[in-house]
Formats: sequence, structure tokens, C-alpha cells
Amino acid sequence: MSDTVNRVVLAYSGGLDTSVILKWLQQTYNCEVVTFTADLGQGEELEPARRKAEMAGVRPEHIFIDDLKEEFVRDYVFPMMRANALYEGLYLLGTSIARPLIAKRQIEIAQMVGADAVSHGATGKGNDQVRFELGYYALNPDIKVIAPWREWDLTSRTRLIEFAEAHQIPVSKDKRGEAPFSTDANLLHTSSEGKVLEDPWEEVPEYVFSRTVSPEEAPDTPEIITIDFERGDAVAVNGQGLSPASLLAKLNDYGHRHGIGRLDLVENRFVGMKSRGMYETPGGTILHLAHRAIEQLTLDRGAAHLKDELAPRYAELVYNGFWFSPEREMLQAAIDHSQAKVSGTVRLKLYKGSPHVIGRRSPNSLYSEKVVTFEDDQGAYDQRDAAGFIKLNALRLRLLGRRDR
Amino acid sequence: MSDTVNRVVLAYSGGLDTSVILKWLQQTYNCEVVTFTADLGQGEELEPARRKAEMAGVRPEHIFIDDLKEEFVRDYVFPMMRANALYEGLYLLGTSIARPLIAKRQIEIAQMVGADAVSHGATGKGNDQVRFELGYYALNPDIKVIAPWREWDLTSRTRLIEFAEAHQIPVSKDKRGEAPFSTDANLLHTSSEGKVLEDPWEEVPEYVFSRTVSPEEAPDTPEIITIDFERGDAVAVNGQGLSPASLLAKLNDYGHRHGIGRLDLVENRFVGMKSRGMYETPGGTILHLAHRAIEQLTLDRGAAHLKDELAPRYAELVYNGFWFSPEREMLQAAIDHSQAKVSGTVRLKLYKGSPHVIGRRSPNSLYSEKVVTFEDDQGAYDQRDAAGFIKLNALRLRLLGRRDR
Amino acid sequence: MSDTVNRVVLAYSGGLDTSVILKWLQQTYNCEVVTFTADLGQGEELEPARRKAEMAGVRPEHIFIDDLKEEFVRDYVFPMMRANALYEGLYLLGTSIARPLIAKRQIEIAQMVGADAVSHGATGKGNDQVRFELGYYALNPDIKVIAPWREWDLTSRTRLIEFAEAHQIPVSKDKRGEAPFSTDANLLHTSSEGKVLEDPWEEVPEYVFSRTVSPEEAPDTPEIITIDFERGDAVAVNGQGLSPASLLAKLNDYGHRHGIGRLDLVENRFVGMKSRGMYETPGGTILHLAHRAIEQLTLDRGAAHLKDELAPRYAELVYNGFWFSPEREMLQAAIDHSQAKVSGTVRLKLYKGSPHVIGRRSPNSLYSEKVVTFEDDQGAYDQRDAAGFIKLNALRLRLLGRRDR
Amino acid sequence: MSDTVNRVVLAYSGGLDTSVILKWLQQTYNCEVVTFTADLGQGEELEPARRKAEMAGVRPEHIFIDDLKEEFVRDYVFPMMRANALYEGLYLLGTSIARPLIAKRQIEIAQMVGADAVSHGATGKGNDQVRFELGYYALNPDIKVIAPWREWDLTSRTRLIEFAEAHQIPVSKDKRGEAPFSTDANLLHTSSEGKVLEDPWEEVPEYVFSRTVSPEEAPDTPEIITIDFERGDAVAVNGQGLSPASLLAKLNDYGHRHGIGRLDLVENRFVGMKSRGMYETPGGTILHLAHRAIEQLTLDRGAAHLKDELAPRYAELVYNGFWFSPEREMLQAAIDHSQAKVSGTVRLKLYKGSPHVIGRRSPNSLYSEKVVTFEDDQGAYDQRDAAGFIKLNALRLRLLGRRDR
Repeated sequence: MSDTVNRVVLAYSGGLDTSVILKWLQQTYNCEVVTFTADLGQGEELEPARRKAEMAGVRPEHIFIDDLKEEFVRDYVFPMMRANALYEGLYLLGTSIARPLIAKRQIEIAQMVGADAVSHGATGKGNDQVRFELGYYALNPDIKVIAPWREWDLTSRTRLIEFAEAHQIPVSKDKRGEAPFSTDANLLHTSSEGKVLEDPWEEVPEYVFSRTVSPEEAPDTPEIITIDFERGDAVAVNGQGLSPASLLAKLNDYGHRHGIGRLDLVENRFVGMKSRGMYETPGGTILHLAHRAIEQLTLDRGAAHLKDELAPRYAELVYNGFWFSPEREMLQAAIDHSQAKVSGTVRLKLYKGSPHVIGRRSPNSLYSEKVVTFEDDQGAYDQRDAAGFIKLNALRLRLLGRRDR
Repeated sequence: MSDTVNRVVLAYSGGLDTSVILKWLQQTYNCEVVTFTADLGQGEELEPARRKAEMAGVRPEHIFIDDLKEEFVRDYVFPMMRANALYEGLYLLGTSIARPLIAKRQIEIAQMVGADAVSHGATGKGNDQVRFELGYYALNPDIKVIAPWREWDLTSRTRLIEFAEAHQIPVSKDKRGEAPFSTDANLLHTSSEGKVLEDPWEEVPEYVFSRTVSPEEAPDTPEIITIDFERGDAVAVNGQGLSPASLLAKLNDYGHRHGIGRLDLVENRFVGMKSRGMYETPGGTILHLAHRAIEQLTLDRGAAHLKDELAPRYAELVYNGFWFSPEREMLQAAIDHSQAKVSGTVRLKLYKGSPHVIGRRSPNSLYSEKVVTFEDDQGAYDQRDAAGFIKLNALRLRLLGRRDR
Repeated sequence: MSDTVNRVVLAYSGGLDTSVILKWLQQTYNCEVVTFTADLGQGEELEPARRKAEMAGVRPEHIFIDDLKEEFVRDYVFPMMRANALYEGLYLLGTSIARPLIAKRQIEIAQMVGADAVSHGATGKGNDQVRFELGYYALNPDIKVIAPWREWDLTSRTRLIEFAEAHQIPVSKDKRGEAPFSTDANLLHTSSEGKVLEDPWEEVPEYVFSRTVSPEEAPDTPEIITIDFERGDAVAVNGQGLSPASLLAKLNDYGHRHGIGRLDLVENRFVGMKSRGMYETPGGTILHLAHRAIEQLTLDRGAAHLKDELAPRYAELVYNGFWFSPEREMLQAAIDHSQAKVSGTVRLKLYKGSPHVIGRRSPNSLYSEKVVTFEDDQGAYDQRDAAGFIKLNALRLRLLGRRDR
Repeated sequence: MSDTVNRVVLAYSGGLDTSVILKWLQQTYNCEVVTFTADLGQGEELEPARRKAEMAGVRPEHIFIDDLKEEFVRDYVFPMMRANALYEGLYLLGTSIARPLIAKRQIEIAQMVGADAVSHGATGKGNDQVRFELGYYALNPDIKVIAPWREWDLTSRTRLIEFAEAHQIPVSKDKRGEAPFSTDANLLHTSSEGKVLEDPWEEVPEYVFSRTVSPEEAPDTPEIITIDFERGDAVAVNGQGLSPASLLAKLNDYGHRHGIGRLDLVENRFVGMKSRGMYETPGGTILHLAHRAIEQLTLDRGAAHLKDELAPRYAELVYNGFWFSPEREMLQAAIDHSQAKVSGTVRLKLYKGSPHVIGRRSPNSLYSEKVVTFEDDQGAYDQRDAAGFIKLNALRLRLLGRRDR
């Protein structure tokens, strides 16, 4: 593979790092840079990114700023929510799930503008480089990938800023000192890691949080909401039908207000080290719990338990960047097959940091009061069947017991 | 198997149901009844059980009242906690885990007193009959099992009470009407189900709860505690070393005060139906979360992910009553193997219904600030390695992409 | 559920046992019996079944004799072959896979003729009763099921024959003595169990085999065949396109001639006991191996390994009778998703009891001589990437080693 | 990590490649080379390796030639056999399982002689580099690893031979042309790959095989043998007690004579590509089948099925080089726990390329003729229990059917 690059599509936030990368790519590869800025609901103005790209000499028709919020939630967040995926039992995968979409769009733009390379601003120690690049390669096996953080010699903050200043890249005041932590944000979550968080014994300082009030600051009165599901996906909040992105935004509002979805985690990165992160997933935390609740009523036990056994693997695949892999797609096919009847309504109480399911109902409920009741069930269930059921389940244990005990 | 029974060991709580069973066994089988009452931390006086048994004609030396609290927590709750077991993603298995111990002790007593049968008061619709009886059969394949609820004709509350009155069994006032719900309790949890809980859309009334204050009633100020672990088991709270049962009791106090560990669940029973239960697991909820936190620091990724994949199966086995099965023991062997270095301290904040991990440290930590830092790591990690790592992970996806896309 | 039955659809082979059942049903339930005889390729004349049913008084329009061979192979055997399912590592599930189809057709006929019950001739110790009845209940939850072997008092061979003679049911001479073993057959396999096979230390006598010559009797010269696959299913043998059932029949011919597919197995039944069976699966054994071979070339590693991990579960579900269950369907969805490119040709050598794969090719091959070659690969693979790949895979082990060794 | 190396332990076969590496290490790193040659039963004279090492200037006390055959079979092959591990359903992992032992011994020698580096002759495209190096790093996280094939510029056979000749390294005649294939051998197996095998459609030529006669050349009369097992491990053949390595050698003799254990496989390498290999595992193939047979009799279903589900993962870990990983050890703990009663005798018939199990017996048998018999079992099993068993297993499917069908 030659090192010559003609045109590169850069995942560009408009921030200091990717602005430096933009310039560095132009200089180092003497190539044309195409910028792509995704609106994934990170809550930032994107027009400044356009101006900065223009100032850096990017051709206007090569500045892509795309609102991908609906696609993000509909085609990435929701399928993952159907899986009840939690990485290492706790993490809702907010960063992981955004990367494949960015990668996919970069490859599409590369195709459109005839670029032969793509680039991103993820560092060489993290998972995001893997997620971006596995996405790139899966979707275009012959694309050239440039990962400046693994190539350049701007290995300290000071040198990065020197480079920026030498190239008229504006450096805001708060970037000059040492950033106390770094963040990633999208409609699903905000993550924070590094520096002030690096001692896992120390409590995360309150100023790190941006998407939720602290539970202590949350209202003293619980709030009750309902979420409607259809075929495994949330479609309405409090009876009001909403598009996927609007729905998640609405749940984010609720989660923010009640301090819901903070997670302090030490996790295992795919690249082999442990890191400590703070995640805020306000709406996603509510959604995850509500999805489980509606499944409780509408999923058969066999389907539910199979899903529970597949979920850790699914989560690992998403975390490691294998979204566009046959095995993730196979698991998704199994999971989606199970969701045909996962419809109904869940009631939740939001209070001081946590959502609590307090009710669920469904036209497809498999719960039968008639069968389960302690009262006379009029023959719906014959208790004597249990004797044979137990006897045959016990048979192998008895044969074993006769041999061993 | 003949229907003749000479002596039967009954799991006897002293309550109305098992008192009726005691009498019914004497009458129906014309046999001697041995009562066994376990103190598993259910928080009830057990001496009344002795008096009632005596009144029913049980020979004093055949009345067994055993304090099993330490054995319960040490040999049942703690091994399960090492597995991070959650049934259907949420339930900490408080009822399930007590049954095998009761069964084991009944079989031991049967051996001691030369009984040829055992009996229990679990109904024919629930999981507990399965758990008891699989335990019995595994430990004594030739024992005779009597499950009165599947045999007798006392199929309504009214008839049960008539029987009681006809046999001078005291019926307390509150048993006369319809019980609004039924409960099971031990040191790990209290469960409630039936009647007033049978509509899964209706919120559980506050009067159902007995082990926790409501989050709304919990203190307005968070409380911070620490838990020390050694080899996967909790050994101290706030630096104070405690026996297993004392430790769980201490955490129950904290959980009670802060409204921690309530769970409203619709679950899939092993016998094939869905039921709705309310669980309160105050200390166990704190313990579960803390165990995960100390594992985050001390477990290798390979071990952690394998555990996560095995946990749903383990939980299913415990729930279904297969504690004394080779496959549960095999999983336990794998899990226990992983816990040798799971030692250290976890800090938690308890507040308004939820525990929050805010710090963890360990002499066996695998977390390395030196490796993970965004700052200069002085060669601890070579970022260029990531390029090859990604390339080879991507290779199969690229070959696939060349073929398919 | 009342015991009154008006019309029952019986799975009827025309043999002694189901002929007795036919009469017994008429007598015991005083009901109309509808017979259903499936041609699944068991290689028996089915018209005698019609005559016998007529003689027993079954109305001609209530005698169903259906050729289900194509449906059997296309919708049951082939999907299972896509899964590479082997029960307990060895058994190709020939009996298990036929039961759901018979159950499905019985329920369809019951619907057509307005029957309120179904019946089968499987005994109370085996798996087939479970497979039939789970199929019935899944497809018609309210059907009444009659399992004569669990109900009647014809508990010995002698009494069965007395009943037959008393009711003018013809008893062939070879049925009068003790049958040396019992069999089940269909296009996929013949199974034999019981009596002469009951000592698992004794070699199965040669006269038990009916579908294969013994390897010693097979030709001294190997025979080479090819099988073409499309999307995971075999479609041609030696280049000749064949329907599913014809193809399996053709492979059975080859397997028969070369003594392929005999299996002497001690297996674990779902009802809790071990049994010893002899299976002959001539064509299926060839097909299973060939399918693996074409997958080797066309399946990505991620898909292949996920399939390998799911296969034991899939096999267990089929064996236990859960064909019509959500979890089997979920696994099938995952498996089928993986088969889109599983097309190509496999060459096999058949010789003295075993098939040997000797070549495979595919237009969708993922095997790349260019990448794998020991010779100069002209940059298709950069060996230096392996260094980084290993380094990052080793990182967690090194951190572990520093702590522990 | 500095590039300075003082003393390096080389895995040295005495062949051309590692002889070139020996010299290249001395020259390139200006360091002292320690050679380690393992006798793993590859069937080669090892003393020539000593002479060659001496000629290359290695100090006599730095030439290690160790007979590791017993350790290899006892601590690596047998534990893997207990797992019934098959990579991708077919491969008995003969190469994979030897690498960790070589790595372990190299690290031990490095410790003894005070070496700071280790080196091996595996190429940059294969799995063996990964297996060696993961072993090295797991056992000594700070060891320096030199993989000449990834570093040097001897990228073609011609240049390698030129280097050899320039340094007085003897080059045998048959190495001068292009090797038609490359091999690896140990007591468990011989593998062949490359060149003449690179077209997976072409049959492997007979001259590639070295460990087995062709099935066609095998005796026309079957041979019957027995293997005794104790606690999961083979301990005797035909009643004769043998050490692990002697036993495997004995089975290799049988397998060789009967043409057993040839496998033509296209497999997925850990480094991301597919390769085609030919494996001969004569004794291992017999052993694998025999172990399954003795487990059939002595393992409970729950244990057996759990093992079957874990086996693909275990095999993948061994194949990928993660022998010294917590997760492989966890799986081993589970597997070993299951083997306590896996004792008894298996009878096999060896004939024309395949072993066939024809009988098995055990003092720990769980098979019960009394329970399984078609004849009167005198109450060992109550067929009516099956009704309840099926009813409760069907309950969820019926509730589902009522909702959906």
C-alpha cells in the first residue's frame, strides 16, 4: 500500500485536536482534506466547524455537516437496546455505538468525493481507533486509513498547542492548561475519562458531570412517566408518539432532571488495559430498564433466557468495534426475531438518581393471572403435573446420587 | 415406591400452613412427624414453633430448631455473589438460594432420626417445590417426598382454616380474611407475591414492603460506606471485620435505612408460567454492586468476560433448583478459580434507593495509571502496536468486504 | 379438561402397536379415530396401513396417508444441517427431527376433520412422547393429547398380543416372540434400541443394521463424489441437480454402499435416563461433513465460531422436542443469516465406513492463496502488523503476570 | 524497551531455518545465543542439533536438549483431551498444544541462564508466533521477544540459503529447491501446509503423509483394542498400564497401521486469514473418540451438555495461544471438576481409516438397564410422571400458542 494520499475524509469536530489534524494532514500528506462533521446530538453548534474548515482551506463542497440523529437512534441505538446490551454488566455502550455510524458515513463521503483515505482523531491507546478503523475496513477494504495520533510527533499537549499556534489555529483559553478530563458526547450519552479521573479510588468531582443534575439536587418528588413500545422499540412517551431521536431526547430531559444514568466504571479496553470512565446515559438508562420490563410480559422464557446468554457477547462485539461483522449481524437476527410481540406500555417512577419500574401492560402479555393465581384457577393448571415434572428432572440427579453420595 | 411412611421430617415454620400440614401428615400417613425449623435470618421468633410442635404431639427430641445463618451466607449466598448471578437480568435470587440449604438439613436430620420421608409446605404452582425436591433427591435418591399441597383436598383458604379449627390449630385473626399477599424471608431478602400484586400494571402498595423504607422516606443526606473483600468475599464493613452473616445483617441495616434493593419483577417460573413478585434485597443489592466494583480492578478481562457469559446460566440453575447438580458445581469451580485475587476495598454512596460506587482500590489492582494515562507514559505502551492490532483484527472483515460489498 | 373425546387423530404406522392403539382408542374413549400415516421415507409400503385402518372401521375419508418426504428434508433436515447440529457431539438427530413434522401434520388434520384430540404410539420412557406432545401443544394449545402407553394396562408384550388377538388384529409371526430390538426409520436415518442393545459393553450384532453394509463388506475401491451447495443447502450430487428428498436418497445410496454413518451411542434422554442406541445415517453423515467443508471456505471466522458455540444448544433443543419454540427459531434466524454465501462444491472420497473431504471450491471463497502463501505475497499482508497484534493481545496477560507470577 | 540484548534463548530445532536464525541473532544483536531443543516426540534425532549448536559457537552449558514427552502428554495433551476440544469442529489442535510448553521451558531456561530475551522461528503469518509470544509474555511480562521472520530481510528462500552458505551453515540438498510443503510434528500429530496444499480443491498428494498409511493400504481385517480411563485420563491400552507418553505412542502405532486420523482442513487462523492444512493425529483421534465414549457412561447429562457448550470456546483459546490465560484455566477447572468419575474401559474397532466404538463399561456407570428397559422395570420409573413433565414443559409454549397462532 503506497503512502501517497490524494484526498482524505476527516472526521472533524471543529475542536482543537481535529483542527490540528486537518492542518497536519494537509502538510504531511500534501493532500486535499474533506471534513465530515456529524450531528449525533452531542449538543454543540456545528456551524463553527464549517467556518473553521473553510478557514483551513477546505473547499465548501467538501465540508459535510450531517444531521444523523434519527439514523443514529433508529439504526444503532434501538437495535442495541433490543439486545439489552451491557458491557461488563453495567455500561450502556454510548460511545461504542456511535463510531460505526461515523465510519459508515465517512466511507460514503469518500465514495462520493473520490477520496482514497479516511482519518480520525482517536488516540492510539483507546478503543475508538479500533471501532473507526474496523468500520472503515469492513465497508471499504481498500481504503487508506490515517491515524495521526499513532503517526505524528505531537506527543504532548504543549507540542500540540505549539503546532496550533504556529499554524494560526485558534486555541481557546481553557485548552491552554491541562484539560482536567476528556469527553465524548452524543444523544445517548456523555463519557468522561482521563486525568482527574485516573485514580479509581477518588470520587468523580461533580464538575465532571454535564448531562445530569446530581441525585441530591434532583427534585424531592418522584415523577411518573410511561413509555410505549412496538416490536421492541420505544415509540411514545406519556402517550405522545415521537421519532426515535425525539424520544431519546425527551427521555434525556427526564433523566437529566432526576439525576439518572451516572456510572463510575473501571472497564477493560479491547487494547488490553483497564481504564476508568464516568458515563452519563440519562435517557438510555430509563430505556434499558423499560425495555426489560416490557419483555418481562411479552417474551417467552426460552427467548428471554437465550437473549440473556447472548447479550454479553453482543455487548463485547459492539464495544470492540465489530458492529459491521457477520457475528454481530447473526446475533441481531436472533434478537430481532424475538421482538415481534414486544409491544405495550411501561410505567416508571423517576426519583433521585434512579428509574423504578412500577407497572407494565401489553396486548401481547404472556402473563396469565388465571394460571398464576393462588386462588382456585378452575383447572388452568393441574398441580399434580408438578410431581411428574420434578420426578423426571430429578431422575438424573438420583442416579448420580446413588452412584456418588 | 410404597405409600407407607414411618417418620417424616417436615420443614416447619410454625405458621398456619405448616401447622396444618403437620396435623395432616399425622392423620393421613399415620406417621411420626419430625419438625425442622431453620433460622435463616427471617427475623421471626422461633420458640413459638417449638411450643406449637410440642402441642401437636411432636416428641421434644424430634423438634429441630437450627441457626443456619452463618452457613447460609458463607456457603450459599457468598458463592452465588461471586458469580454476580442475576436471574433474568435483575433478580438476586434470595428465595432460590435458601432452599437447597433447608433441603440439605432436612436430609441430614432424616438420616439422624431414621426418617424415611421429608415434606415441605410449598405449593404446586411455584418454584420452591422443585428446589426443595431436587435437593432432597440429589442428596438422598431414595427418600420419599410428601408435598401436601399437591395431594390434599384443602384447595381453598376457607377449607384450610376449617381444618385448622377442627384440629385446635390456632388461627390468628389476620389469617382469617384473605391474605393480601404471601411472603418469604431470610437474611438475604424478603419476597412478596400473589393477590394484591397479581396485576402487573398496578404499583405495589407501600404496605407490602417490610425490609426497606421507601426511597422517599430515606434520609436526605447520602451515607458513605466501605466494604472490604478477600478472595471474592466481603469480610469487613467500614473497616470492621465481620462474619458472613453479621456482615450481611450490617449491610441490610444500611440498605433498609436508604430504601435500597426493591425490585418489582415479572419473572418466568421454571414450572412454565409468569408471575409477578416484589423483592427486597437491601444488603444483597449493595453487595452485588460492590463485588462487581472490586472485580473491575482485580479481574483480568478474559476472566471477567467469561464470568459474564456464564452468569445467566448459573443464575438459571440456582433459580430452577439445581444447586446440587454437577453443572452448577462445574460453574462454581470456574468462578471460584477466578476469585483468588479479588481483594480490596470499595467505597459506596447510599442515597434514596440506590447504592453508587464512588471508588475502589486493591493491592491486586490490574489497573495501571502508568499505562492508561493520556500523558507521556514513558514507553509503557507503544501506540504503534495498535496499528498492527487493528490491521489483523480487520483482515477477515476486509476479505469479507472484498467478496461481499 | 374433560376426558370426553369425540374424534382423535392418531399417528398410525399400520404396525401392531398403533393397530392396538387404534382399537383401544375406539373402545376406551368411544370415539371416532382418524388415522394419519406419514411417508417420511421409512421405506415401507403404506397401502397396507390404509387397508388395516379400513378394517378397523376408520372412515375412508378419515384415512390420511401423506407423502411428506420433500417437506421433511427441505424444512426440517436441511435447516438442521445448516446448524451442523450434533447431539452430544455425535448424533445427527434423525429421529428427533421427524417428530415435529408429524405433530404439525396431525394438528393440521385435526383442524380439517374437526378432531378434538391427537394420539401417538410413543412410550412413556422415551423422548418421542415429549417431541410429539410439545409439537401438539405449541401448534394447538387446547388440543387433548392421548398417550396410550402412559394410560393403559397393556404393560407387557404378552398382554398387548392378547389384546390384539382378542380384537382380530393380525399379529405377524415375528412379533410373537420378544422383539430383539426396536427401530425407527425415515429418509434421514434408522435408529435401533432396546433388548439386544441394552448392554453397552456388547458390540451391536450385525443383524441390527438395515441401512448400511458393514464397512468390511463395502467395496475395496474408494468412490469419489461431489456435492454442490447453494446458500447452505445441498442442491446437486455429481453435478446433477436434485430436489431435497431425492438428493438425500441419492446420498443414502452412496452411504449404504460404503458402510457410512453407523453410530453406537450411549446418550442422555430428556426424561433423565441414559439409553444406548445404534444409529445409521448414511446420507446425513456425508452431508454433515460436506456442509462443514463448504463453510470452511465461505464462512467468516466470526460467523463460524459463533455457529460452533450455538450448535450444541440448537442440537439439545431439537433433541428435547423444542422445534416449535422461540429459542430454536431465534437460533435458526442467526444461523440462516450466516448461510447467504455458503455455496460451492465439495469433493468427497467414500471408503470403508467413512467419508473423507478431499477438496472444496466456491465462487464465494474467502480463502486467499495470495494472502496465505509462504512465498512473496507482494504486500497483501504485512508481517510487521503481527508484532502489534501480539503485543496488544499480550498486554493484559503481561499486566497479570507482573501482578501474579 | 531497549533494543540491546545480552543473551537470548532460541527455540532451536537444528534445521536450516533456526540455524540461520542462530547466526543472524549473533550477528544482528551481537549477543550470546542459548539453544533449547525440545523432544516432544517429533521423531527426530536431537544430537545433531547439539553438534550444530556447538559448531555455531554456542557454549556447551548453553545447549539445552530436554525430553519433554511425558510432561507434554500429561500436562497439556491430556487436559485438552478431557475437554473434548475440537477447533472448528474437527481439528485436534496438535500444533497449538505444544507451543505453550516450549514457551514455558524457554522462559525457565532464560531464568536459569540469566537471559534477557527469547526467540523463535515462527513466521509472521502464522498462529505459532502468537502462541509462543503470548506464552512468553504471560510467564515473564518483561522478557524481550525476537521474532526474526518479522524483522529480517531474508524474505525469500533464495536469500535464506545465500545467508546460510555465506555463514557455513550446512544446507541439505532437499532444501535447495522449493520445499513442496512445510511440517510440524510432535507426539500428538504431524501437520503439513503450504505450497502443494495451497489449492483447497486439489486432493492432498499421498507423499505428504508421514504418520499414517493410507486407509486403502491399511489391513483388511479390523483390529480391536481397549483403552482404560481413570478420572478422565487414559491409563492403559489392552489392559497394559502405560505412562501418558507411552500410551499415546502406543495408540499412534495403532493409528498409523490403520490409517487413522487424517484431516484435510481449511481453517481460520487467529491472524485473520484462512489456510489449508493436512493433519495426521493417529493416536489422538482414537483417544478423543474413546474419551467421549467413557464420558457417555459416566458423566451426568448436565455436566456433559455444559462441557459441550464450553468446548468450542476452550478449543478457540488453545488455538489462539491463550493457554496461560485465566479464562482457559477457569474452563479447565470446570472441566476437571467433571472428570472425577470418568473411569472405565472402552472397546474400539480400528479399520481402514477410522476407529469405531463398539463397547464401554465402567464401575461408575450412570447407565441403568433397570431404568431404561422396555420390559417391566418393577417401578424404577413411573411412566405417568412423563405426563406432568411434558405438561409443564409445554405450558409456556401453550401460553405462547394461545397468544400467537
